[in-house]
Order: sequence, then C-alpha cells, then structure tokens
Amino acid sequence: MAAPSPETLNKVLHHADASLDASRARLFELLRIPSISAQPKHREDCQRAARWVCDQLASLGFTAEVRPTAGHPVVVAHHAGPADYKGPHVLFYGHYDVQPVDPLDLWKSPPFEPQLADGPHGKRFVARGAVDDKGQTMMFVEALRAWKEAAGGIPARITALIEGEEEVGSISLEPFLKENKQALAADLALISDTGMWDIDTPAISTRLRGMTYAQVTLKAANRDLHSGIYGGSALNPINALTRILGELHDANGRIQLPGFYDKVKPVSNAQRAQWDALRFDEAAFLGKIGLETPSGERGYSGLERLWARPTADINGIWGGYTGDGSMTVIASEASAKVSFRLVPGQDPYEVFEQFKRFIQERLPPGAQVEYEGHTRTPGIEVNVDSPWVRAAQQVLADEYGKPAILIGCGGSIPVVTSLREVLGLDSLLMGFGLDDDQVHSPNEKFEQRCFHHGIRSHARLLAKFAGA
Amino acid sequence: MAAPSPETLNKVLHHADASLDASRARLFELLRIPSISAQPKHREDCQRAARWVCDQLASLGFTAEVRPTAGHPVVVAHHAGPADYKGPHVLFYGHYDVQPVDPLDLWKSPPFEPQLADGPHGKRFVARGAVDDKGQTMMFVEALRAWKEAAGGIPARITALIEGEEEVGSISLEPFLKENKQALAADLALISDTGMWDIDTPAISTRLRGMTYAQVTLKAANRDLHSGIYGGSALNPINALTRILGELHDANGRIQLPGFYDKVKPVSNAQRAQWDALRFDEAAFLGKIGLETPSGERGYSGLERLWARPTADINGIWGGYTGDGSMTVIASEASAKVSFRLVPGQDPYEVFEQFKRFIQERLPPGAQVEYEGHTRTPGIEVNVDSPWVRAAQQVLADEYGKPAILIGCGGSIPVVTSLREVLGLDSLLMGFGLDDDQVHSPNEKFEQRCFHHGIRSHARLLAKFAGA
Repeated sequence: MAAPSPETLNKVLHHADASLDASRARLFELLRIPSISAQPKHREDCQRAARWVCDQLASLGFTAEVRPTAGHPVVVAHHAGPADYKGPHVLFYGHYDVQPVDPLDLWKSPPFEPQLADGPHGKRFVARGAVDDKGQTMMFVEALRAWKEAAGGIPARITALIEGEEEVGSISLEPFLKENKQALAADLALISDTGMWDIDTPAISTRLRGMTYAQVTLKAANRDLHSGIYGGSALNPINALTRILGELHDANGRIQLPGFYDKVKPVSNAQRAQWDALRFDEAAFLGKIGLETPSGERGYSGLERLWARPTADINGIWGGYTGDGSMTVIASEASAKVSFRLVPGQDPYEVFEQFKRFIQERLPPGAQVEYEGHTRTPGIEVNVDSPWVRAAQQVLADEYGKPAILIGCGGSIPVVTSLREVLGLDSLLMGFGLDDDQVHSPNEKFEQRCFHHGIRSHARLLAKFAGA
Repeated sequence: MAAPSPETLNKVLHHADASLDASRARLFELLRIPSISAQPKHREDCQRAARWVCDQLASLGFTAEVRPTAGHPVVVAHHAGPADYKGPHVLFYGHYDVQPVDPLDLWKSPPFEPQLADGPHGKRFVARGAVDDKGQTMMFVEALRAWKEAAGGIPARITALIEGEEEVGSISLEPFLKENKQALAADLALISDTGMWDIDTPAISTRLRGMTYAQVTLKAANRDLHSGIYGGSALNPINALTRILGELHDANGRIQLPGFYDKVKPVSNAQRAQWDALRFDEAAFLGKIGLETPSGERGYSGLERLWARPTADINGIWGGYTGDGSMTVIASEASAKVSFRLVPGQDPYEVFEQFKRFIQERLPPGAQVEYEGHTRTPGIEVNVDSPWVRAAQQVLADEYGKPAILIGCGGSIPVVTSLREVLGLDSLLMGFGLDDDQVHSPNEKFEQRCFHHGIRSHARLLAKFAGA
C-alpha cells in the first residue's frame, strides 16, 4: 500500500460518516462497563473493559493482548502497517478507566447506562467516561476501523497502549513502560484525552499541569467526645484541620507552602501574548457553571491562571457527625484530600514534602498526623516545533476549515511525562472534549459532533503519516 | 402514711439492693429500643420508648399518659403521694431519647444490645443511652419501685415528665410546657442527667452551659467541577469554608465572633476559689482520652474553661470526594455543623446572628450561604441557697459518707431554662454519671455502682421530702 490517494481518504471519511451509528453503538458497549479504577470493588470491571478494548483491536488485525500489572491491566496492541510504510511509528495512548460517580444522586440517568440525548449542538452521549476517555479512545479505534473496512487495511505502523489507571495517577504504568521499552518503541505518542477551544475550533494542547495529591488525617483524642464535657479542654481535630487548611492561601490567593513558587518556570511574554489574543471570555466560561467572579491568584489573566499557574484545592473533607440534625460531638479525627496542580519546573515530590512541612509547622500540641500520597506528576510543555504537531495542525485545518490553535490544559496527563522520560517520545495531544463536558462530574457527556469529527480527524492524520 | 421512719427507709434501701438484677433487666429492656431522636427513621422507636416508660410509671400507680407533640411524644405521669403528704410537689424530669451512634464501626458491641461488662469499678452497662439518660431516668423509677414494693406506696407527690427530644434541643418541650402549665405545676424540678465529681464523690450541678448549634452550607458552582479544567478560576467552596471556619479562634483560643464575649457574666472570685480547691487534675482528665495538652482559651484554669467559658466546636464537616483513592473534583458545596457552648449572660439567638455575620463578612464573591439553626439555649446558674439543694446534699452525704460538692457542668440541659421561665421552677441537678462514661460516643457505659447508688440516693431523697 503506497501513500494513500485523496480518493482513498475520501472513501474512508465517507465510510466513517455512514458508520457513525455503529461506531456509537460500540462506544456504548464500552461505556456500560463500570471500570472505576479508584474503587477496589470495580477491579473486575476494569479487567472486563481491558478485555473489550483488546478484542476490538484484535478484530482490526492487531496483535493484541491484555497485560497484567501490579494494578489494573494494560492493553498493548501492534500493527505493522503496510510493508512499504515510511512514516512514523505511532504509539497511541488512551485509557479505559473512569472516575468515580459520586454524588450519584445528581446524575439524571445512571452513569453506566449511556444515553443518546439532545443538546444545543445536536446529539450527545451521556455517561461516565463518555469523553474521558472512552469516547476519545474509541474515536481512534473507529478511525482505524474505517480504514480497514473502506480501504482494506491499516495505513500506518501503530502500537496501541490503553491503560486502566489514568484516573488514579497511572501508578503501574511507568514500571510497565520500563519493562517493555522494546515492545513500545515508536517515533511519537499520539494522545486523545484533551479538549478543543470551542465546538467549532480545533486545538492542540502543548502544556499540561502536573499534580501532587495527598490525603491528610489529623487525630486527637482516642475516641469521640461529648462537647459539653470536653469542650474547652480537649483538642478538636476538625477545628485544627480547618485552621491549618484555611491558611493554604493568603488574601491574594497565593499558596503559602514554603518554597512552593521557587521553581515555577515563568511564561514567556510571547506565550502570554498568544493567549491574550484568544480573548478568553472568563465570565462566559464561569457563567456556564453558575459563577460570576473569578477566584484564584490575583495579578494573572484567566488563561494564565488556568494553564500556567499552580493551584491548591481541597477536593474532599470529612469528620465528625454529618447526619440529620445535631450531635454535640468532638470527633477523634478529621481528614481532607488536597491536590496541587503544578506547572513546569515544580517537583511534585518536593511539593508533597512542602505540604507536610506546612501542616507540621501548624500542628497543635496533641495532634497526630497521617498522610497518604496519591498522584505525584510534574507539569510539562510539549515541543511545538515538531513535524507531528504541524501535521496535526494541517489535518485539523482540513477537517474544520479553520486553523487549530495551540492551547494549554489545566489538567494532568501523567503519562506524557513517563512517555518522554522512559521511552524518549514527544506527545501529540489532539483532543475533542469541550469545557462543558462535565468531566469528572455527574452527567458527563460527549458531543456526537465532536466524536464524529474526532474519528475523521484521526483518519486524516493516519493518511498524513502515511505520506498523503 | 406519715413521715417515713428510718426503719422504713432501711427496708426500702435493702429492697433496692436485693432487686438490683431486676432493675438492671428493666433498664436493658429500655436500652434495646433505638430511640435516636435526631433521625427520622427512628420516629417509631421513640414512640415505643415513650410507651415503655409510660407503662412502667402506670405499673407503679401513676396516672400516666403518652402525650403527642409536634415532634416526639412526652410522657406525663402523676402520683399524689400519701394523703397527709406535706413536702414539696416534685417534678421529675428525664429523657428517653438518645444520641446517634456514628461512627458505628467503633462500637465493640451493638449500641442497642446492652452488655453487662467488667471494668475497674466492677460491672458496667454498655449501650447507647446507658447513662444519658435512660440509666439515670430509670434510677428514679427504680427508687419509686423500691418504695412501692418494700413500703407499700410512693412517699411523695410526684409529676414525672419524660421527654424525647433532649438530644435535639428539646424543640417541642417549651410549647408543651406552656400548654400544660396547670398539669405540670410543682414546687421544684428534680433532674437526673448530670455527673459526679468522681466515682466516690457525689456532686450537685449548679451551673450549666447553654448552646447555639447551627449548620452552615456554602454553595459555589451549580455542579461539581474537574479541578484541572476549573482550578485557578472557579471558587472552591471547601477552600472557602475551611478558610472562614479556620478563623473562628485567634491564636489564644479566643472566639472571633463580633461581640461574642460582651455579655459573658464573669465568675466571682469566691466561685473561682471554690473550684481551685477541687484541685482538678486536667492532665489526668485528658490522659484518659489519650491527650496530654489542654486545648482552648488561654488564661483560664481547666475547670473555668470547662464550666464557665464559652467554646466553639465544629462537630461535623463534609464536602467533595470522601471515598477511596483520589478524585480531582471541585465540589459544588461544603457544609459544617458548628456549636457554641454558652455561659450565663450570653443570648443564644444573638450568638446565632453573630455567627451569621462572621460568615457573611468573610464570604468570597460568588458563594451562597445557607443556615439551619438547631439548638439555641442559654447557660444557667442554679440557686444554691434552696432547701432542696440542702436536702440533696444531706442525702448524698448519708449515702456516700462524704459531702457532695457543688460543681459546674460543661453541657447543656435546655429544659432547666424552660422549667424556670415557663413553670417558675428551680431545678435540682443530682446526677450519677462519670467523666469517662463516653456519653455521645461509641461504647457509652454506666457503672452499675453508680446506678445502684443513684437508686438508693433517690429513695433517700423521697424520704427526705416526705419529712424523714
């Protein structure tokens, strides 16, 4: 198979259009598997999801297998592409695991019973994982299927790596990459787990924030106490925890961990000018979620705060009596989950140490503290001068009729760091999510229009890699 | 029946000794009813407990009925006593409701399956309500039973008022008292819901703290958010709530509500000297619950902090993701239950307004706040110069062979205020609980020795009222 002709690509794109219902039906099958990686009770569901993805790739002619890890399994699949293929060997990365679904009562339909609903942009898919990342992973798989069914084969050399621990910090992936360097060798990584600028404007993400995520528990008395008997003498760990965490930020929204900003790599003026040119409407961005006023660090633009400044968020807090009515108890312990979004330059392990020091310095006498470390991943910048970024820009311009823009992403994709550090690969982040997709929230959705363009864009990118 | 002779009283006391197993068995029946007033699902259990107590009193010759209220019912029972009775008409107050049992997993035995366990002071009863207040209420009922069975009748004029909302602030009781002034007329109120100084030293409580208990909820975005997409722009209500509540105290443990201390009635030097003479060992008091260092307001002695200084405690806090592992969510809301223990002089309604103002002044733009008010009851001081306090002191000295001491109590018994304001009654607070009874906590217990002495002391007090 030589470099594909424009006619061949057109045939593939037409086939993708005509097969959209079938593509969606396959995605819905995957969405029905509750593969929540954070929750031990869903361990088998994760295995089922891995097996399902593996079977899909095998049916496309890939040599595919489900590989065990210390945690949830990884799907690895290879396709050599045409014998005379001269383009880059592509390592496609996606993940089949999803976030927990709490609070369940806010879902309008069960999170693992995908719905085809109507919205202002036409049809949309509603389910946990609809966009993050089952929907985006399946866009690529469906692009492969369109090539196979309409053009008789896969046009490029591809290794697919679909993991099951992205939502819990990809804990087992780095060891897996190290043990399988040979089998995972490639020329670039292609990742479909990011967003567009808006539904009409494609984007390539060139900047990701990292993360340090920790759980802290303060313990005081060896049992719960009556606040009438002990109030005024016994330490209240909820009082203490709120007092400490209440000092995470100063009045200007600056994070108070000692040394937290020391290694933050400043954003260039050129980069800042580029972002300013996007004329980000933060009021509209917040208006969609019922807010008016931006919160966060003073002295930075909205996009800079979202893409290039670190944050500290308490993601969960609990302690004492939380039922109906009143209970006059002084709890024996209180806990919080705290995450720091990091930017290039900051060391996530160092930030964890800074957080512990911050707590330790404020710990009242008699309190004991325990930590549980979760994610620790650095922020990264993608090399924007690569031929692959240029290829993707061309492809997206062809598909959407307007240029793709280079954006930052406030979230973390830990694998991008691992792929660079272990396999030496640059990542190309071409994604089709929207800001209002309710990722990690109840009623997560994915626009069918995005899914459809995503399949077509990936089909085009494969042709481009093959020399079209 | 004339004033009872010492022989009659001795017969009654001997009968109480001989019947201890049967008394305990009756208490255990009541303890098996999970009458948690705070939780709507236990509504019928509260009714069952009321009925059970009513039947007990009826079996002792009382005219007894279960009276409905807007909340849980009240048991009212009358006994005229001997025709020639010349002593005071006693209104006995107790409550059949109990606190919730969270956290259930810390109970060593099911909270509503009472256990007869061994401890350093001999046998003890372990169950929710063992001491607060089923055990203490039943001491009085068993004293009545001893009189009836050993001496042929009840020696005093008694109205019993056993309510079912003490643990939720006695919400329906005040209207009930107002509507039944006539039927509840008496000369003094006798309340068995407080503690001893230690297991060998009886005490009468002459000071109680009041309480303002409120629930506060901060709301921000109209849904949960992905902290990667929104972190740095969207308000995090958990961050905001911890920041606000973290400022409840200053570095010296002083509560920062505007005007909070303005009306606090200072403790007299004489009173302070009396308390100092008790040589309260705060280190030992805290040592029993695994703490070493006192917490709370600087510049006051332990007893003054516990009995005569107001406090602010966060009794519960919750928001965001609290399950296994990590979830990078910015929650849409966060809540806390906050209680203020108050001292004589402070107005509990005013404190609620001060709390709302404190929150309002710190509310970040975009946050909405909602309040739910629970208990609001003032702190009180008992008149220690009454003949009834002197009678109780005499009775306790006879029973224990050492004088009873006058103590404060850090807790609140809202009814004491209502009894004075609505019925014009002074309260006599003679209680048999111990500091380590784990009131409101898992594994609540009551020493059998305290229960036994409590029955005997009440039997003696009835004789004293009858002129013995």
